[in-house]
Amino acid sequence: MNYKNFKRKIYLEDKPRAQAREEILAAFRLTPEKEEISTITSLGRVTAEPIFARVSMPHYHASAMDGIAVIAENTYTAHEQNPLRLKRGEEFCYVDTGNAIPSPFNAVIMIEHVDCPDEETIEIIEPATPWQHIRPIGEDVVQEEMLFPQGHIIRPADLGVLLAGQQTVIPVAKKPVVTIIPTGNELVEANAELAPGQIIEFNGSVFAGFIKDWGGEPNLLPIVKDEPEKIKEVLLEAAETSDIIVINAGSSAGSKDYTVHIIGEIGEVFTHGVAARPGKPVILGKINGKIVVGVPGYPVSAYLALEWFVRPLICKYLQIPEPKRQTVTVKLGRRIVSSMGAEDFVRMNIGYVNGQFVANPLTRAAGVTMSYVRADGLLIVPANIIGYEQGELAEVELLRPLEEIKQAIVFCGSHDLTIDLLSSRLKQVRTDMKIVSSHVGSMAGIMAIRKGEAHVAGIHLLDPSTKEYNISYINKLLAGQDVVLFPFLKRKQGWILPKGNPLGIESAADLARVNANYVNRQKGAGTRILFDLLLEEGCLTPEDITGYDREMFSHLAVAAEVNGDAHGAGLGIYPAAKAMDLDFVPVADEEYDLLMTRGFYESESGKLLMAIIQSAQFKEQVEKIGGYQVVENAEPKCLGVEV
Amino acid sequence: MNYKNFKRKIYLEDKPRAQAREEILAAFRLTPEKEEISTITSLGRVTAEPIFARVSMPHYHASAMDGIAVIAENTYTAHEQNPLRLKRGEEFCYVDTGNAIPSPFNAVIMIEHVDCPDEETIEIIEPATPWQHIRPIGEDVVQEEMLFPQGHIIRPADLGVLLAGQQTVIPVAKKPVVTIIPTGNELVEANAELAPGQIIEFNGSVFAGFIKDWGGEPNLLPIVKDEPEKIKEVLLEAAETSDIIVINAGSSAGSKDYTVHIIGEIGEVFTHGVAARPGKPVILGKINGKIVVGVPGYPVSAYLALEWFVRPLICKYLQIPEPKRQTVTVKLGRRIVSSMGAEDFVRMNIGYVNGQFVANPLTRAAGVTMSYVRADGLLIVPANIIGYEQGELAEVELLRPLEEIKQAIVFCGSHDLTIDLLSSRLKQVRTDMKIVSSHVGSMAGIMAIRKGEAHVAGIHLLDPSTKEYNISYINKLLAGQDVVLFPFLKRKQGWILPKGNPLGIESAADLARVNANYVNRQKGAGTRILFDLLLEEGCLTPEDITGYDREMFSHLAVAAEVNGDAHGAGLGIYPAAKAMDLDFVPVADEEYDLLMTRGFYESESGKLLMAIIQSAQFKEQVEKIGGYQVVENAEPKCLGVEV
Repeated sequence: MNYKNFKRKIYLEDKPRAQAREEILAAFRLTPEKEEISTITSLGRVTAEPIFARVSMPHYHASAMDGIAVIAENTYTAHEQNPLRLKRGEEFCYVDTGNAIPSPFNAVIMIEHVDCPDEETIEIIEPATPWQHIRPIGEDVVQEEMLFPQGHIIRPADLGVLLAGQQTVIPVAKKPVVTIIPTGNELVEANAELAPGQIIEFNGSVFAGFIKDWGGEPNLLPIVKDEPEKIKEVLLEAAETSDIIVINAGSSAGSKDYTVHIIGEIGEVFTHGVAARPGKPVILGKINGKIVVGVPGYPVSAYLALEWFVRPLICKYLQIPEPKRQTVTVKLGRRIVSSMGAEDFVRMNIGYVNGQFVANPLTRAAGVTMSYVRADGLLIVPANIIGYEQGELAEVELLRPLEEIKQAIVFCGSHDLTIDLLSSRLKQVRTDMKIVSSHVGSMAGIMAIRKGEAHVAGIHLLDPSTKEYNISYINKLLAGQDVVLFPFLKRKQGWILPKGNPLGIESAADLARVNANYVNRQKGAGTRILFDLLLEEGCLTPEDITGYDREMFSHLAVAAEVNGDAHGAGLGIYPAAKAMDLDFVPVADEEYDLLMTRGFYESESGKLLMAIIQSAQFKEQVEKIGGYQVVENAEPKCLGVEV
Repeated sequence: MNYKNFKRKIYLEDKPRAQAREEILAAFRLTPEKEEISTITSLGRVTAEPIFARVSMPHYHASAMDGIAVIAENTYTAHEQNPLRLKRGEEFCYVDTGNAIPSPFNAVIMIEHVDCPDEETIEIIEPATPWQHIRPIGEDVVQEEMLFPQGHIIRPADLGVLLAGQQTVIPVAKKPVVTIIPTGNELVEANAELAPGQIIEFNGSVFAGFIKDWGGEPNLLPIVKDEPEKIKEVLLEAAETSDIIVINAGSSAGSKDYTVHIIGEIGEVFTHGVAARPGKPVILGKINGKIVVGVPGYPVSAYLALEWFVRPLICKYLQIPEPKRQTVTVKLGRRIVSSMGAEDFVRMNIGYVNGQFVANPLTRAAGVTMSYVRADGLLIVPANIIGYEQGELAEVELLRPLEEIKQAIVFCGSHDLTIDLLSSRLKQVRTDMKIVSSHVGSMAGIMAIRKGEAHVAGIHLLDPSTKEYNISYINKLLAGQDVVLFPFLKRKQGWILPKGNPLGIESAADLARVNANYVNRQKGAGTRILFDLLLEEGCLTPEDITGYDREMFSHLAVAAEVNGDAHGAGLGIYPAAKAMDLDFVPVADEEYDLLMTRGFYESESGKLLMAIIQSAQFKEQVEKIGGYQVVENAEPKCLGVEV
């Protein structure tokens, strides 16, 4: 068979995800195996069959109190005016909680209600009723009672009931073995020296983590090269030794995407492509009776496809329901566009601002792993909907506990490296709080405050006419809103240049003169506005600058681009240049301030944040980075409304 | 020191729980230790410090599509009417997704938009813009960017980001070692032969499970006898080797409760008793700088005290917030009485009936482990509230996923052993469904249907005047409500007697004659009503029967009581007698029917349940037990309203 023939064949289906799922579940016909394990090691395991109590609990009539055991019928004459005296031995005995009630006693009187003239005699002033303060046999568990059905996940307290019932060994479902096969000539192990075009194999470890979390037994194989014969061999062997096979990647239609053809040749392909994004190019099939799932290479696509198709198989094997994520209703901060005919899984940031959950989409690029790691939730846009308008309410599946989202301070606006430091410090002081930041630029930061989507915005906007930072913009854009501007940092902006500044760049005019590859910032970023001002001052236009349209979203991203390119140049803050060991030519000392609503400023969270910013410890940490000066005795300004 | 002196000293405090918690957290001054571990083994561990990216991701300009790489500036003339032909090598090269873009190319055109006259030539009809379909360096992660702060719990997807950033080893917080010391002369290991008064030591294993779940490293010691010197020695040794010590029990004020005195002698006691139930008799102290928590012996008290005081210490050590449980608002099915001045933690069953969450308290006895295992949630009654009225709304902390509660069929009424079988069968067919049953008796079952607190009630109520089962009761109690009565079982009721029937009991008159220890059922139970009828028929009164007031809540519980007592006798169903190998003298063939609202009967869940009941497989399983006959071709009756 000549795999070359397939290399440009593009034939992905758009099968509805639910249909693909039903088909694969129906095809998964394994009889779950069970194993007997020691109960004390069974935490998190799943019962394979109903478990019944072997003994009752308590297995004897037990005292429920510290006190004395008596024969109730003999106490009926006891009265305040006529105390009854009983002798130890035949007439009463001492019992502690949990002690067996010796025959013929049939009631317990609490020690607090007993008067003890001496150790051998007691006096009571109230009769006891039969069986009072006695835990009858089986009060907790009766012998032969069903303790747990099959498919029950053992929790800590369950161990107690099992052990108390003398179930020291229990039958649990064997964990299904899921073999993970990473394929690709571009893949290298995580500790390898990286050449361009090489990618670290990490999907396999992530898959193994998910599979473990879901109750399976992952078996991660070493990287397999893109050689059809080798892949075939490994697949056939996996079909012998595993319950489920996951192969990554080669599931799409690129020049080395053999997987679907191989599975078709040695087995059966049910599905190639589902109507869901990202994660569309998935393969579902069967080899020698074992289900094989071909998962796309882009991490986010891969994680979703794994959840859609591998998790249900594991749950079916274990006889447990698929866990559902908690959901929350959010207000959408931006319009969300989705394609008709396919489900869209949109990673979302969620903030809790002014008593409302507000959510914004993260990048939809399937290759951006951090977008999944940073996401608070998933918005699933159904196939028959083309999206949502800004301001609409939508239901989002949570990827983090709601409490964590509620306690987070939403930081928006311009990117600065000290914000990570501030977040880390805040988390040290209050482990249940953190800062969630998105780098959208100063202007977008102001708009986020205006729309009630963020608690704090970092801004550094120079007004060319007044040469003053931030205030004129706020007065214009937030007129009538009650906001506070908190002076935070003075920081150095300058040219970020390759080590040694080989092109000798000192000004915008130099950029144009030497035709440097400039790396710009996105529209609305303070640094972009500064650059435009520098162009204007130098009587230059965007057309004079190569790379003016190449936009990055952070100082570090600009520095990273300059880092690889001897002709590169960017504008940004000193610590970004320093972090990548690049040259830095100062251009301006700018004011980076924090804008917030007065409501937040005066809240407990706001006060805590300001206190941390002004602490000597934080100041010292920031200034150690270099290029920064924390504003001493900062005087917050109330803006927006007349005060 | 003579510990005997303390044996009857009762001096538990009622310190507010929050205060006790603050004090112990303030006293816990350990500096968390960290350890470097391999990233692939770090799932669920907690970062000990912020983690920064070592390399950018991608670390080169990567193609985002399968296609060709070109120099954008050279494609500007391409047009539908003027296709541009490019030669492989200098003018274009093939790239797959993820490939590095070779210099001097700066744009990618998707393979779908390319025409290939031959392998070495392509034609395009649209110009490319610079950097299109190229993932810039650092699109995902930029070198030096903070990936995670300290105190972050590693999830599967996080592994990907760490490995991609070549962080193959990461610093995580060491797990705090929590030594668990079980004490008590009454304790024996789970596999021991049990004598009356002996209790299986299981709390330690449950504690170990909780501690593991919370991120600690449990160290469970063997059982220590109630010998003060021995306990002292073990405590002092634990203070050397652990971060936190848990001792169970001896924390109360019984005759062997030495613990508080020992801790006071070799260390310091902060708290003895908190204003919370169950769990009040807790000890908080310190020995040689290590926090020691003395936990009460009753399982439910112990689990709560552990959560109140040990979990916060572990979280503080790991620098993570304490997880909070999801809550749900429920309607209370019964009145809840609580003591003023102390918080009450009430275990609750929650059902989702008619679109509403309805909750009822389980037993409040601290010794009933199953009540914690069976609980769906915890109702926390604050110290300044004396309880809630029936029908009031209250917030309940969930012990199970809400979805599981929503999917459960709430079964109420009379106890029958086949209900467990039915639940198990249902779960086999639909892993996400189950039956939650509470044994409250037939009358209470009817009332639960009336109040909308249950989906199904099992009832067997004989009308003495008509000798007919169930219908007259429903017509009286559910007039005007649209309900369905589904004929389920014919079953044998009879005398449950010690093996060989030594007292020769055949009738109620015999019970009175031989003065047997009768074990009765609770008021409203169908079996109780049957017994009262038998008394009436025999011209007897409750006073003639010893044990008439001793009430059990299930057939098995009655059988368990009879089992230990040669003079015992009870009334119940055949399988209960059979399960405990007791004698059975039949008294009546009764009709055990299922009562439900018509809404449930016609719902998807209702239809599924009826289908299972009428399946040959279920019928066979039930009849194998003995004493049962499943009603063939059951004809449900619509009652309550005129149809």
